[in-house]
Amino acid sequence: MTQETQIGLGKSGRLTYSLDDVAIVPSRRTRDPEDVSTSWTVDAYEFQVPIVGAPMDSVMSPQTAIALGKLGALGVLDLEGLWTRYDNPEPLLAEIATLDEATATRRMQEIYSEPIKPELITARLHEIRDAGVTVAGALTPSRTQEFYTTVLEAGVDIFVIRGDAVSAEHVSTNHEPLNLKQFIYDLDVPVLVGGAASYRAALHLMRTGAAGVLVGIGGGAASRMRTTIGMHAPMATAIADVAAARRDYMEESGGRYVHVIVDGGTGVSGDFVKSFALGADAVMLGTPLARATEAPGKGAHWGAEARHPRLPRGLRAKVATVGSLEEVLYGPSHTPDGTTNFVGALRRAMASTGYVSVKEFQQCNVVVAPYQLVNM
Amino acid sequence: MTQETQIGLGKSGRLTYSLDDVAIVPSRRTRDPEDVSTSWTVDAYEFQVPIVGAPMDSVMSPQTAIALGKLGALGVLDLEGLWTRYDNPEPLLAEIATLDEATATRRMQEIYSEPIKPELITARLHEIRDAGVTVAGALTPSRTQEFYTTVLEAGVDIFVIRGDAVSAEHVSTNHEPLNLKQFIYDLDVPVLVGGAASYRAALHLMRTGAAGVLVGIGGGAASRMRTTIGMHAPMATAIADVAAARRDYMEESGGRYVHVIVDGGTGVSGDFVKSFALGADAVMLGTPLARATEAPGKGAHWGAEARHPRLPRGLRAKVATVGSLEEVLYGPSHTPDGTTNFVGALRRAMASTGYVSVKEFQQCNVVVAPYQLVNM
Amino acid sequence: MTQETQIGLGKSGRLTYSLDDVAIVPSRRTRDPEDVSTSWTVDAYEFQVPIVGAPMDSVMSPQTAIALGKLGALGVLDLEGLWTRYDNPEPLLAEIATLDEATATRRMQEIYSEPIKPELITARLHEIRDAGVTVAGALTPSRTQEFYTTVLEAGVDIFVIRGDAVSAEHVSTNHEPLNLKQFIYDLDVPVLVGGAASYRAALHLMRTGAAGVLVGIGGGAASRMRTTIGMHAPMATAIADVAAARRDYMEESGGRYVHVIVDGGTGVSGDFVKSFALGADAVMLGTPLARATEAPGKGAHWGAEARHPRLPRGLRAKVATVGSLEEVLYGPSHTPDGTTNFVGALRRAMASTGYVSVKEFQQCNVVVAPYQLVNM
Amino acid sequence: MTQETQIGLGKSGRLTYSLDDVAIVPSRRTRDPEDVSTSWTVDAYEFQVPIVGAPMDSVMSPQTAIALGKLGALGVLDLEGLWTRYDNPEPLLAEIATLDEATATRRMQEIYSEPIKPELITARLHEIRDAGVTVAGALTPSRTQEFYTTVLEAGVDIFVIRGDAVSAEHVSTNHEPLNLKQFIYDLDVPVLVGGAASYRAALHLMRTGAAGVLVGIGGGAASRMRTTIGMHAPMATAIADVAAARRDYMEESGGRYVHVIVDGGTGVSGDFVKSFALGADAVMLGTPLARATEAPGKGAHWGAEARHPRLPRGLRAKVATVGSLEEVLYGPSHTPDGTTNFVGALRRAMASTGYVSVKEFQQCNVVVAPYQLVNM
Repeated sequence: MTQETQIGLGKSGRLTYSLDDVAIVPSRRTRDPEDVSTSWTVDAYEFQVPIVGAPMDSVMSPQTAIALGKLGALGVLDLEGLWTRYDNPEPLLAEIATLDEATATRRMQEIYSEPIKPELITARLHEIRDAGVTVAGALTPSRTQEFYTTVLEAGVDIFVIRGDAVSAEHVSTNHEPLNLKQFIYDLDVPVLVGGAASYRAALHLMRTGAAGVLVGIGGGAASRMRTTIGMHAPMATAIADVAAARRDYMEESGGRYVHVIVDGGTGVSGDFVKSFALGADAVMLGTPLARATEAPGKGAHWGAEARHPRLPRGLRAKVATVGSLEEVLYGPSHTPDGTTNFVGALRRAMASTGYVSVKEFQQCNVVVAPYQLVNM
Repeated sequence: MTQETQIGLGKSGRLTYSLDDVAIVPSRRTRDPEDVSTSWTVDAYEFQVPIVGAPMDSVMSPQTAIALGKLGALGVLDLEGLWTRYDNPEPLLAEIATLDEATATRRMQEIYSEPIKPELITARLHEIRDAGVTVAGALTPSRTQEFYTTVLEAGVDIFVIRGDAVSAEHVSTNHEPLNLKQFIYDLDVPVLVGGAASYRAALHLMRTGAAGVLVGIGGGAASRMRTTIGMHAPMATAIADVAAARRDYMEESGGRYVHVIVDGGTGVSGDFVKSFALGADAVMLGTPLARATEAPGKGAHWGAEARHPRLPRGLRAKVATVGSLEEVLYGPSHTPDGTTNFVGALRRAMASTGYVSVKEFQQCNVVVAPYQLVNM
Repeated sequence: MTQETQIGLGKSGRLTYSLDDVAIVPSRRTRDPEDVSTSWTVDAYEFQVPIVGAPMDSVMSPQTAIALGKLGALGVLDLEGLWTRYDNPEPLLAEIATLDEATATRRMQEIYSEPIKPELITARLHEIRDAGVTVAGALTPSRTQEFYTTVLEAGVDIFVIRGDAVSAEHVSTNHEPLNLKQFIYDLDVPVLVGGAASYRAALHLMRTGAAGVLVGIGGGAASRMRTTIGMHAPMATAIADVAAARRDYMEESGGRYVHVIVDGGTGVSGDFVKSFALGADAVMLGTPLARATEAPGKGAHWGAEARHPRLPRGLRAKVATVGSLEEVLYGPSHTPDGTTNFVGALRRAMASTGYVSVKEFQQCNVVVAPYQLVNM
Repeated sequence: MTQETQIGLGKSGRLTYSLDDVAIVPSRRTRDPEDVSTSWTVDAYEFQVPIVGAPMDSVMSPQTAIALGKLGALGVLDLEGLWTRYDNPEPLLAEIATLDEATATRRMQEIYSEPIKPELITARLHEIRDAGVTVAGALTPSRTQEFYTTVLEAGVDIFVIRGDAVSAEHVSTNHEPLNLKQFIYDLDVPVLVGGAASYRAALHLMRTGAAGVLVGIGGGAASRMRTTIGMHAPMATAIADVAAARRDYMEESGGRYVHVIVDGGTGVSGDFVKSFALGADAVMLGTPLARATEAPGKGAHWGAEARHPRLPRGLRAKVATVGSLEEVLYGPSHTPDGTTNFVGALRRAMASTGYVSVKEFQQCNVVVAPYQLVNM
C-alpha cells in the first residue's frame, strides 16, 4: 500500500522521499569494520566493491574505466560520448572544463553534433579489454539498434542501456522501436538497463531479462530534469520501490535475482551508504568520481542530458577535485565532507549497525529525518 | 473528501500544495516526442499550443499579441493597461524598466492614473485583428460594464474578465454589480473568467456560461498578495480542484466542457508542464514571456495588482532576457534552466510518460516531492 | 481533539502552525472594500480599527499613544519603560537607536536599571488623558501590586497586565503573588491580560474576569525566547486555541465575551489580516508601528524581554522607517511589502472573501500552505 | 507504538524529530525562577546543576574539569586526547586553533597519531583529584581494556565509556570484545556509557548495569556523521526513546534508575532546556563550553570523530568566545543568543511552566513547531 495524499479534489499523489530525507540508525549490535564484506557479483563477474563508474564523459574515459577496474569496481564507457566521436577528445574535454557557465551548454551542443564513429567504439573497447579488466559500455535505447553489433563484435562483458526514462514498452510511429526482451534474449552478455524509478517500470524491465536495473531518472546533482520538464523521482522512494520489484520478480520468476543499481543522487558518501540501506545492490557514481584527480572532466561534470541539441536538461557543473580515484574509493580521507573513502564509510556504517554483507545491510533500519545542517 | 488538519482548537485548514511540491513520474510506457499533440481548441478557435499570453503590460502589446498568434498561441491584451491610456506608451515602458526598486511602485501609480481612452481600445484591437490572428482583450470585473460595448464594437474573438479574486456573486451597496451570467449569456463571444482558486468558486463561474476559468489569485512571481493581504492559493491544489469542478460541471450541465486555464506561478517550463499533469487545458504565461527579447517590459515585469493606487499587491520585478518569443516557446534551448522551449519540454514529458494528447496527459501520475535543489 | 504526533516513545507533542504556515482563500462571494466595517469595541470604548499599539518603548511614547488614539486605534504605554524611569528619555532613545548590535543589550541593561518613578507614571498618563484619547497603560504581573494604585489614581481607561507567560495561578514561596481574579474584581476598569498561548491558560485568564486576553509568548520578530529558553507558541495555533477558549468561556459564563488580542508575530499586513481569519478580535502591533516616522525607537525596536538584567530574551532589532503612522494604518501604500496600509489590507481581504465585519471574518476559510517565496 | 511512514514499497521508516522541531509551551501555572531546583545526583555524587562537560580536547582540560567541578557541574576528561598523549599539549592546542579549515583535519590526524601514555592518564586524573572535585574520565570501548586498570588505579569517581555507536553486544573476529556487563559488574565506580540513540540500544546498555546512558550518535554541531556515513539520530526522538527505556528498565529491574544524559546537539540554551522537557536527567555540553574564555580549544572545537586516521567524521569547527565558564553556566547574559546563562534559562523555563525539579520538568508539554527564524 502506498502513502497517498490529496493534492486537490481532482488529483492524489504519493508522498515520496529523497536520500536527504532519511538516515541510518544503529541498533543494539555493533561489529568491527574489518569484519564486513563489500563484494558484489553480477553473473560471472565479481567485484571487490559495489561501485559502478557512470557512463559520463566527465567521469569515464578508457583510462579511468581501466583504473576503476583495477581498484575492484566496474567502469562503464559512454559509447555515444566524446571518445567515440573524436579520435582525440582531450582538447575538447579541456575546453569544456574552462567554458563559462553562460555559454557551456551551447558549445557542448556543437561539440556533440559530431557523428559517432563505429571504429572508435571498437578501438575504445579494445583498449579497456587489453588492460585485463571487465569491459562495459553504454548506449541509449534509441541508438542501441544502430550500434550494438559493433559493440558486440568489439566485445563487452556487460552491456548497459541507459536513458533518462527507459520503459519496456516504447511506442513509436516513425520507426520500429527496440524490442528490449527479444534483444536481451538474443545477446550473450548480461544487460543493465534503466533509468527506471517506479515499481511497475522496474518490474517490466526485469521481465525483459535484464541482469540489473538502473534506478533514477536524471537524479544527479547536475541534472535539471525537474526544472525543465517537471519530472523527478526522489531517490529514497525509488530505490525502495525497485527493491520491492526485485523481490516480487524473484518470486514470480522462480528465483532470478535482478540487481538494483542506484544511478544518480549519491554525491557524498553518506548518500552512497544510505542507498544500500534502502535496498541497492550497487551504486553508479558520477559526481564523486568527477572529483578524482584522474577524472577526464578536469573539474567539470555533465551527463548526456546536458548536451541535447534542443532541450538540454542538465548542467555542465563544476566540482572540486579532492583526491585520487583510489582515495575517493578507499581513502584515507582528510576532510569530513563525504567526498573520499566511500568504501570505508560503507564498512563503518555496516559495522555500526552489525551487518556483515551488503545484502544483509539492505535490512538496516532507517528513519525519516529531514536534513538540518545545524543539527547534523 | 479534502485533507483537513487542525490548526488550533477553533480552526481547521486544508493541506495545500504548490507546483514546487509536486513532480511528474514516468511509468511503464514511453513514446517519441514527435508523436504527441499539443493542440488546444476553444469554441471555434484552434491553437497549435495550449499557451495564452497574460494581459500584462510587461508581456502583451499589440505587437506581441500578434507575434504570439502567429506562433500558434493566443495573446490577450490588457484593455486597462498603458496601451489604452496613452497614444504612445513606449517611452513610459522604457522608463518603468529603468526605475529603481524603491520608487518603481510610486511612479507606476502616477503613470496608471491616466484615464483609459475608449478610442485606444478600438485602435489596439483593430491593429491585432488586421494582422489576421485571434483577437482577445481583458477587462477587470469592475470596468467591464463601462467598456465592454467599446470592446465588442471593436471586435474581439475571445473576451477575458480577469481580477485577483473574481466571484460569480459580487455584492455591492454602491453600484449594481456585474451580473456575470446575464452578461455572458448576452455576449456572442466566448468568455474566459477568473481568477478562481477553489472548487466552489470555479463551479459557480462555470455556471455563468464561461468558456474557460482562469485558475489562480495573484500567484505569479511578481505578486505579493500573501505578504500584503494574507491571501494565497497554492497552485497545484487550485488546479486539481478546478479540474474537479470541470468534471462535475460537465456532468451537471449534460456535457459542457469548460476550459481550465492556469494563470500564474509557472515561471519555468517544469512548472508549466506540471500544470497539465494536474488538470490544466491551457496555461497563461507571464514571467516566461516577459523574458522574451520582444517583451514590451524590456526586462521588467509587473501585473495589474502592482499599480493599485492605495494598496499595491505586486512588484515591478526584474527578469532576465533569454531569447526570442519563438525560442521561449519552441527552442532550441541553450540553457538547462527552464526558461526556453516550453513546448519541447511539454512534448518530452508527455513522451516520457506515454501520453499522446494534453487531455490524456491530465491523467499523468504525480508525486508529492518537496523541492530540494541539491537533490534535483 | 488536538493533533498529536509521537516525538519519541516517551513523549508526544501536538503539531502547531505559525502564521507563515497558513493563508486565506477566497470562496464564491466577493464584496466592495468600502462596504466592510473594521470597528472594534471593548466595554464602553469603541475604536475605528482593531489595532492596539504595543507597550514597547520603541513604539509607544505618550505622543504616539495620543497619535494612535486620534487615528482610531488604542495606544498602550509601558509603565515600566523609559518614560516612567527618566524625566527626559529622548537622549536615551536616541542613543539606543545608534548602539551597535554587539553592545546594545548590555547598555540597555544599564539604562533600564534606573528605578521607576511613580510621579512619572502619573505625569505620562495625564499627558495622554489631556489629549482626549482613550488612556491605557501596562505593567508586568510582578510590578502590578507595587504600582497599580498609582496608575488608578492617575486614571486609566484600560489596564493592561502583560508578561511573557502570564498564568492565573502564580506560585511563589517568597511573596504573596498577585491574585488576578480578586484584583480584577476590585478594579473599575477593564483589564487586558497575557500573554497566554494555550486554550487552558487562556480559559483560566478569562475566568479571572479579564476583558481581553493577549495571545502570544514573546512571538515578535525581536524575541529570542525560543533560542534562549526553548519556549515558543506558534501563533496560528495559539490564536485558534484562544478563540476556542473564548467560545467555551462564553458558554460557561452565560454570555461574557472576552476579547482575543494577538500580541506579536504580525510584522506584515498579511499576517495581521490572517490573525483575524484565525479568530482574533484585535491585534497588538509592535514592529509595524516601530517602522513609523513618529516611532520613538527611531529605527530600533525592542521589547521588555530584551532588557532583562541577567537573561535577556530579545534583540534590540533594527527596522526600516517606511512612512507616517497614518500611512502604516491607512496608506496609501507605495511598496508592495506589507509594511503600510494595514487597514486597507484588512478591508480588501474581507471584501475578497465576502465578509462585512471582523467578527464574521473570523469564520473565513484558511488553508495550510507553507510559505515559499518563489511561489508567493 | 512508533510512527512509521512508507519510504517506498520495500521500506518503512519512522518519523523522527530534532530539538529544532520542538518547543516548550507554558500552561496554566507559573512560578518564581528562584523557587526551582536544578540539582542532580548520580550514586553518591550530587551536583548543583545537571551539566556534564564533554570529554573533548577543545572543551576539557584538567583545569576546566576542575573549574567545572567548582561551579557545581561535572567535567569529564578525554583519556585518549592530547592530555594523555603529550606532556604539554598547550602548543598543539594553540596550533590547532589557528589551522585553516582545508588542512585542519590532516594536521590533527598527525598530532593524534602520538601514542597514549598511561603515566599521563595517572597524572591528569591526580591533578583533578587534588583539586577536590569529582573525578571523571572517558575511554572509547575499543581502548577500555587496554587502559582501564591504569584509570582505576589513578582513581576516578565516575567512569565514562563513550563512542559514536556503542552497543551492549559488540561482535569481532579479531579480538575478544569488551564484555560490558561483566566489566561494569567488576568495577567499583559508576559507569556512564554511550552513545545510544534508540530504545532498544539504550535498554541493553541499561541492563549492563550502567549508571547512565549517553544519548546521541555524533549529534554535535561539529559532527559530520550524516554526510560521511549516512547515520543520524535526531535528538528529540532519541531522548524521548531513551527516557522510555529508563522507565521500562526501572520496572523490569525492580527500581533501578539509570540516568539519561544527552550528548550533543544542544548548542544554545534553548536546546539545552528542551532536552530536559523531553526526558533528560543531565546534558553533556560541548559547543557551549568551547565558547568559554577558559576553553582549551581557544575558539576551535572538535570531537574524537574528527581525528580518525582514515575516516574523519567531524569538523574542527570555529566557535565564538562569549564569556567565562561561570557566565556560560550562570550568567549574567548580555546577548539574547542562547550562549550564556544556561542555568538561568533552565530555571526560567521551569518557572514559566510551573515545575520545581528537573525530574518533574520532564513531564512538561512540548509541541512540534519547526523552527522559522522570522517567527521565533
